[in-house]
Amino acid sequence: MSKPDKIKIGLLGLGTVGSGVYKLIEKQKDEFYKKAGADVEIVKILVHNMDKKREGVDPELLTDNWRDIIDNDEIQLIIEVMGGIEPARTMILEALHAGKNVVSANKDLIAEHGKELLDAAEERGVDFLFEAAVAGGIPIIRPLKQCLAANEIDEVIGIMNGTTNYILTKMFEDNMDFEEALAKATELGYAEADPTADIEGLDAGRKAAILASIAFHSRVVFKNVYTEGITKISAKDIAYAKEFGDVIKLLGVAHNTEEGIEVGVYPMMISQNHPLASVRDSFNAVFVHGDAVGDVMFYGRGAGEFPTASAVVGDVIDVVRDTQYHCTGRISCTCYRTTPVKDFKNVKNKFFLRMQVDNKPGVLASIAMVFGVHKVSITKVMQKEACENDGVAELVIVTEAVKEYQMLDSMEHLKDMETIREISSVIREY
Amino acid sequence: MSKPDKIKIGLLGLGTVGSGVYKLIEKQKDEFYKKAGADVEIVKILVHNMDKKREGVDPELLTDNWRDIIDNDEIQLIIEVMGGIEPARTMILEALHAGKNVVSANKDLIAEHGKELLDAAEERGVDFLFEAAVAGGIPIIRPLKQCLAANEIDEVIGIMNGTTNYILTKMFEDNMDFEEALAKATELGYAEADPTADIEGLDAGRKAAILASIAFHSRVVFKNVYTEGITKISAKDIAYAKEFGDVIKLLGVAHNTEEGIEVGVYPMMISQNHPLASVRDSFNAVFVHGDAVGDVMFYGRGAGEFPTASAVVGDVIDVVRDTQYHCTGRISCTCYRTTPVKDFKNVKNKFFLRMQVDNKPGVLASIAMVFGVHKVSITKVMQKEACENDGVAELVIVTEAVKEYQMLDSMEHLKDMETIREISSVIREY
Repeated sequence: MSKPDKIKIGLLGLGTVGSGVYKLIEKQKDEFYKKAGADVEIVKILVHNMDKKREGVDPELLTDNWRDIIDNDEIQLIIEVMGGIEPARTMILEALHAGKNVVSANKDLIAEHGKELLDAAEERGVDFLFEAAVAGGIPIIRPLKQCLAANEIDEVIGIMNGTTNYILTKMFEDNMDFEEALAKATELGYAEADPTADIEGLDAGRKAAILASIAFHSRVVFKNVYTEGITKISAKDIAYAKEFGDVIKLLGVAHNTEEGIEVGVYPMMISQNHPLASVRDSFNAVFVHGDAVGDVMFYGRGAGEFPTASAVVGDVIDVVRDTQYHCTGRISCTCYRTTPVKDFKNVKNKFFLRMQVDNKPGVLASIAMVFGVHKVSITKVMQKEACENDGVAELVIVTEAVKEYQMLDSMEHLKDMETIREISSVIREY
Repeated sequence: MSKPDKIKIGLLGLGTVGSGVYKLIEKQKDEFYKKAGADVEIVKILVHNMDKKREGVDPELLTDNWRDIIDNDEIQLIIEVMGGIEPARTMILEALHAGKNVVSANKDLIAEHGKELLDAAEERGVDFLFEAAVAGGIPIIRPLKQCLAANEIDEVIGIMNGTTNYILTKMFEDNMDFEEALAKATELGYAEADPTADIEGLDAGRKAAILASIAFHSRVVFKNVYTEGITKISAKDIAYAKEFGDVIKLLGVAHNTEEGIEVGVYPMMISQNHPLASVRDSFNAVFVHGDAVGDVMFYGRGAGEFPTASAVVGDVIDVVRDTQYHCTGRISCTCYRTTPVKDFKNVKNKFFLRMQVDNKPGVLASIAMVFGVHKVSITKVMQKEACENDGVAELVIVTEAVKEYQMLDSMEHLKDMETIREISSVIREY
């Protein structure tokens, strides 16, 4: 069996991540052979705009024609860092069908079409690796698929989006309100011009789908993930969190239960003693519980040019090694079960509720009665008079773990009560 | 190429870790094929004492004769969980020479004879994996060798011993003194009857040697590691740490510098904002800095029956997969450099010094002069009068980063001064 001295690579995309990958491969050029058993060379780069000036990149490498890459039989490895569903999906499928290995950082694509891509890779016995698609530079997919493979994992929770963690950190530590913290995140380049995918939990939701699939050996797609963002979190909620010894974090939460997989992304109050609580600024972390290993956590940069390139090029080194050992396709899809995903209405959570109510006797009793009707047990009640003495008091209620539908039904009921002026926040507690 | 349906395993050792491995493999029996492409079966277990009753283990499997295992050609994989240098070393070498794959959790052995074992594995093209040897259940070796392989890593620091972290946590959080916390650790089974290897930093030192070797691609052995334990840490030191916003942790510290590798284990004051500071009780964590990925941290259980078994059986799954793909030996020794290890005397650190001095004018000036002579800059000085007014004051000095020999020389000088009654502590600062 022959071992090529050099693996030729086609790079799809030369944006932030793409240029990070290009620079990192250049930087590691002399190390590749020692690390992976062969040298590598990027021989073609697919770009959208051929006219754009690209610092430090040989213009000869650029092409806007996919056929220059897919039809080049010398190219054994495709790195896809364009993002988005199409044309990435079609190109990766074509590459896999053609027997080329693929490394991708594309969470949107994998969270929706992961099975199709992994099946195509398996069919041809090639590698399809995507460590960078979840939590950027943090090693998490390989640890789950290999190091922790002996475990039955029942929980994966994590801070899977750096933008929102930065915003929540600023709100918590510097008493900023949401808008101010978002503006700061935008100024620093952490938030995009349209921050929707971050602040509404969609980005984290895609990562949660991928992680749940791998951890529980059963396919979870993005549309299975309940998502709720952080736009409604206020300084007052943060103040209560502090009072309770908690912080508020946007968490991707996945559990494997006897009744099925639970998966969602939403802000949660979590104890300041929990390892995730000390994950600050734009850092990410994924916390995993396995029956043998117990609690483990993986912490680092979830995004950015070089952290993401670190994961991509780590995968590249693995592909090169597999090529040299003729064992590409060695680790493919690990979803060998078909576990149903639970309707989110049946997922259990504790709730923190903050509401503005008439400051008069009997109001609490009537609210408690509503919860009683829906079998929601209350563990804590706090009432504070509002500063302006306008007859309104702020009431905070914390519940036992109840099913989401019990809380939804209670809320419907509460909304109709005249003594409740406003339901200001509903936040889950870990 | 044929793929066996079942991989036969010889298990060396049936102590805490060994029986964890046995139970975990039994528990995962039905999953193995789906996870690794073949079933596994433990066909022989080497034990010292054949008469001891072993709950749940078929007595037919037990042997006290190594030849029953090494001479059995059907056994393709040896799991070594006996610990200690000999006979583990000889057995593993024999197994590797015989073309058997080996999984080991033996840090003492690998920290001293890692090169010999990895060379033997490479020669025969078999796997020698040891994820469990460092930080128990925490995935760290595979992440370093694969996920982070694209990085130039310049720093690995970590809490690599659970016993001492438990003791320091109790001292910090519950104001226990060292002896009381050690007694508590012994009572809970965290500390062994002879706790020397833990409390003197030897256990952590072995792990630091292994991690430095992998992170910096250059062999570091245990005798290269400077070690200092936690027996001299007092409640007073902890109180000062709190005052400074720090905690005291026993850290394994490895740096790759232009002048060589620095590696040691010693207690350090580290900011409460550092991710390692929130690692409590018997948990371990390893913090890594790479040029591309930035900061990453791996957190979890560093010891114990099932956490360690989790790592061992994760390696077993990998060996089985490699066997099925005929690519054993795919990832072997990654020490392709020969970087010298620096003499510890030339390593730079900041120091915290606590001393009892005569409470009279001119003392501080004379101490400062000594430091001046040795070119040690002082960044902080605090003086507190002792409770009993016996003319003694407690003086605390914090220095800039200086080479160890500068501090040693200064200490020699200070010890001779009549105005200094006692040098109570010398603790490095991160």
